[in-house]
Amino acid sequence: MKTQAIGVFDSGIGGITVLKDLVSAFPNESFVYLGDTARLPYGTKSPETIRKYSEQIITFLIQKNVKAVVIACNSASSQFTESEWKGIPIYNVIDPGSKLAASVTKNKLVGVLGTKATISSGAYQKKISFCDSSIQVHAVTCPLFVPLAEEGMYDGEITKLVVDKYMHSLKQQNVDTVVLGCTHYPLLASAIQDYMGKNVSLVSSGQAVTMLLQEDFKSNRLHPAADKNGVVTIYTTDASDHFNLLSQQIMSPLKVDRFEQIDL
Amino acid sequence: MKTQAIGVFDSGIGGITVLKDLVSAFPNESFVYLGDTARLPYGTKSPETIRKYSEQIITFLIQKNVKAVVIACNSASSQFTESEWKGIPIYNVIDPGSKLAASVTKNKLVGVLGTKATISSGAYQKKISFCDSSIQVHAVTCPLFVPLAEEGMYDGEITKLVVDKYMHSLKQQNVDTVVLGCTHYPLLASAIQDYMGKNVSLVSSGQAVTMLLQEDFKSNRLHPAADKNGVVTIYTTDASDHFNLLSQQIMSPLKVDRFEQIDL
Repeated sequence: MKTQAIGVFDSGIGGITVLKDLVSAFPNESFVYLGDTARLPYGTKSPETIRKYSEQIITFLIQKNVKAVVIACNSASSQFTESEWKGIPIYNVIDPGSKLAASVTKNKLVGVLGTKATISSGAYQKKISFCDSSIQVHAVTCPLFVPLAEEGMYDGEITKLVVDKYMHSLKQQNVDTVVLGCTHYPLLASAIQDYMGKNVSLVSSGQAVTMLLQEDFKSNRLHPAADKNGVVTIYTTDASDHFNLLSQQIMSPLKVDRFEQIDL
Repeated sequence: MKTQAIGVFDSGIGGITVLKDLVSAFPNESFVYLGDTARLPYGTKSPETIRKYSEQIITFLIQKNVKAVVIACNSASSQFTESEWKGIPIYNVIDPGSKLAASVTKNKLVGVLGTKATISSGAYQKKISFCDSSIQVHAVTCPLFVPLAEEGMYDGEITKLVVDKYMHSLKQQNVDTVVLGCTHYPLLASAIQDYMGKNVSLVSSGQAVTMLLQEDFKSNRLHPAADKNGVVTIYTTDASDHFNLLSQQIMSPLKVDRFEQIDL
């Protein structure tokens, strides 16, 4: 077990924000990331298709001998809720994100931003209510956030207007906590924080799932790597210099050791 | 031959703008449309992946016994330039769009809007120069146009700002003709026309490829259908009520006879 990597996947670049949090927290661990760039985005796809793609990818990661899989994609997390599959632990980002949001809110008003797939699954709404049934959850779909993040348009007038379009109602409802329920959204975090004001807490998937892995390393559900220096490998299903460049920028100052394109 | 339909395909909703032009022009013909919604968008994918997907779809359409295939997607057209494949005529949208733009421009300054895949293939730039080497072509990638169109944001302040972002340079260069080099873009035509002014001509893929089919029906390269009323069938690779609704809105007042989801 001790030399096995941790598998991480997303449809594209968003999951790299989760990977960065994980590599920062666990520098001795090795990570195998798969970005399903040929088939991105997942957020507009049907539940059945997202489930099918997720199973294909987890099977691929298991073939790469990983000891656990982190689903660094909220749309996939909403369709893949098992905590174990084919004998290995699976971490989705919705369970820890919901738990963290429920513990952070003071006024019991929580906003959730996500893709169509994630929001219409109702997963965050159910999980947050399960943690604390007195919390009111206001969920909003934000379809233009992913293309803005993919384009590197993290700020500027267009981004401000799009943030206002989607988040106006959350501001009116006076939420004190906002779940960034898509792993692309942390790339727009500063525009979102500026709009909501500094008293509103943002909860990201990377931060939440990292805390859960920390607990599982402590409790020995996960065994730490023996190596002193972990290796980070990124696989993609389509060739893309844009992806490789953008993922290196997001990971910086941390390093990616290897990129490889594969067919699924 | 006389009872065969015409096959049409795109990654998603954009090709419906082409289908509408074709059904309007040839009401006696039957059409079989495939929207590869599970794998959209194509515009950000690599040339190899786009080629592979196109071959799969044309093979599917041939199994449906079509007499010709219209590639109602500029990204796919840029990677599939054969005029015949496996014995049937193939119509891409770049050849007729380039020819039409070259015949329309008076000041020999043409703008081309497209996805990353289309623009970086250089297909329009080469084809327009081939038609008339004195024409200067200014090509611009517009990555946010597809998500805006998919969201039905055909106008409003955000759309105006995005149009300005991408088209500012074309206005400065004083182009008198703009090729809408992605089949989604006609959905934003009025915002684009307002920005460029009424003296600028817009060239759409649907309009251009319809003219080419008209010529081929006249010259008997294509044989007309014997039936009096054509049937329009739309296949998609992913379930999507949003797609079905949006395609009916775009086709209106023309009708879609049947929707079906398939696996490729």
